[in-house]
Amino acid sequence: MTCLAENPHLEATGESSRGFAPVRFAADGLTAQRSSRHLAITPKYGRGPCEVDVRYLWCGAPDAPTLIVQGGISADRDVTSLDPAGNPGWWQALVADGAAIDLARWRVLAIDWVSPQELGADAVSSEDQADVLAALLGELGIGKVHAFVGASYGAMVALAFAARYPDAVDRLLLLAGAHRPHPMATAQRSVQRGIVRLGQSTGEVDQALALARQLAMTTYRGSDEFARRFSSEPAWRDGRFHLPVEDYLENAGRRFVERFDAERFLGLSESIDLHQVAPEQVPTATTLIGFPSDRLVPLADLCELQQRLLGRTTLEVVESPYGHDAFLKEPELLAPLLREALA
Amino acid sequence: MTCLAENPHLEATGESSRGFAPVRFAADGLTAQRSSRHLAITPKYGRGPCEVDVRYLWCGAPDAPTLIVQGGISADRDVTSLDPAGNPGWWQALVADGAAIDLARWRVLAIDWVSPQELGADAVSSEDQADVLAALLGELGIGKVHAFVGASYGAMVALAFAARYPDAVDRLLLLAGAHRPHPMATAQRSVQRGIVRLGQSTGEVDQALALARQLAMTTYRGSDEFARRFSSEPAWRDGRFHLPVEDYLENAGRRFVERFDAERFLGLSESIDLHQVAPEQVPTATTLIGFPSDRLVPLADLCELQQRLLGRTTLEVVESPYGHDAFLKEPELLAPLLREALA
Repeated sequence: MTCLAENPHLEATGESSRGFAPVRFAADGLTAQRSSRHLAITPKYGRGPCEVDVRYLWCGAPDAPTLIVQGGISADRDVTSLDPAGNPGWWQALVADGAAIDLARWRVLAIDWVSPQELGADAVSSEDQADVLAALLGELGIGKVHAFVGASYGAMVALAFAARYPDAVDRLLLLAGAHRPHPMATAQRSVQRGIVRLGQSTGEVDQALALARQLAMTTYRGSDEFARRFSSEPAWRDGRFHLPVEDYLENAGRRFVERFDAERFLGLSESIDLHQVAPEQVPTATTLIGFPSDRLVPLADLCELQQRLLGRTTLEVVESPYGHDAFLKEPELLAPLLREALA
Repeated sequence: MTCLAENPHLEATGESSRGFAPVRFAADGLTAQRSSRHLAITPKYGRGPCEVDVRYLWCGAPDAPTLIVQGGISADRDVTSLDPAGNPGWWQALVADGAAIDLARWRVLAIDWVSPQELGADAVSSEDQADVLAALLGELGIGKVHAFVGASYGAMVALAFAARYPDAVDRLLLLAGAHRPHPMATAQRSVQRGIVRLGQSTGEVDQALALARQLAMTTYRGSDEFARRFSSEPAWRDGRFHLPVEDYLENAGRRFVERFDAERFLGLSESIDLHQVAPEQVPTATTLIGFPSDRLVPLADLCELQQRLLGRTTLEVVESPYGHDAFLKEPELLAPLLREALA
């Protein structure tokens, strides 16, 4: 792994008060880098070594041990907010000064996932993402991370990371992610990619990406949650009936298109389906967190993962109506589990 | 309900030996009409009374009591095979001479669902289908049916029928269908319709309809079934990875496009989502059959239906890996339940 980084990195400090737990950077002596590094890896599905700019956030107590924190394919490096005037991070409720992942105690590192386009490869693997993270650790002078906290695709990459760099991580915290995708979830993502390709071939990429996101939402959320929220009557509008759940889905689709790119979506969605890690090659102590309402990552797959992992493994089962998205929607339930697993 | 029928109807007799249970028509003195009638109904979402040609199959023992048998939105009147040289009916294993729905003992009536296009209406309701069936009964001189056996959408229409014509049916046998669609299933169908509309607006109707069917297949089948069948490695082909489940889905999509029309699909899919029957208005004795692996019609909805139905109701729970499609895939498990419920 050659590190070619020459990019400057920015020191950003500030004070934030958004979200579940307020984050104060400068006031509490916390530090934050939100920058990028030019790294080289050899992608699994590429044609030899290649270079890529990796965008990262590294923030928290300056001399504290580092935790890697990664989410799903649509999450980014902004796991927590740096800019008091900006949006909260995607896991602001759990990653903040005083939160379960306490920035006064830990330093958190997160990257924007790399896409096949950025790698110039046919596809991007969870191993590639792990290699990018390992190269970045080298670049930042981090010999070992205290934990890799990964949710959804982040959990898959965490397993790939621990299998490839067992000496670089002390423990894994994996939420709603396993050693392989479930074939039913693969089927659902395959249809999402088919929709996007149909949009690309007909010049309606935005509409198609929105529809693919609508479909994704039906897999992220819980069945009981939908039953509770969307039971009202259909409304006749614009020449057809609109059902309550449709308005919700259409809104979710539109918002996704504003922030996401079709090619990037295709590459990262496929990366989930290409993911395979032999749990027997992961010696790291692991805490698994699963949700019985998760339609995408069935609890049975986490049970199998627990049985097959080489290292000491705990499985925590969290009841929630929110399905796969419980890792985003249940910070109060997750906080004590994360605190304990990191202790 | 005015009956305007003037169409001739054909008497078809023959001998069949395809499927799980061979059907012999002429040899056993069975009779079959495969014909159409011109009927009038007043559609719920229409602009007054309208006329429609309804295609039906009525076959079995000539003087036996009639059973209505209806399946899902993609099923047709050919519940059993008439033509020895043709394809078997969609429920051949259960509807045949000597089968659980024994044509030597019963006379089975089934229709092709009517679409909004055929009605000239904005949408077609499950009540409209019930009205069509009631008008057809009048036309054929059937005062009362021994049972309405409905699966999936057929179960929804059976409930609408019993609520509107309680004196025209003695009992209901409902498989994998309830008094309302589940909002999660509505969400999934809504995306399917969005795909088809995207195809219509871009001139790629066939490709879109195939994709919609692929998505539908992920809702019809069981998660464990997919896990067992599709666990092999992806293959690189035509410039991208193909996952084992994708080949299965693509084949299912292609086959559907060969036999189904996009407008008809849109209308019947929407009809499921507009369906609402108050179980308290159904006085008929009912047997419900549900499958715990059914992702489209959760067992909890059948439990609620059982509690709310006015008539005496039994709920039979059948374990199967096949999800919603268990009503098609488990004839051996269903046969004794159907026999008993019809007795």
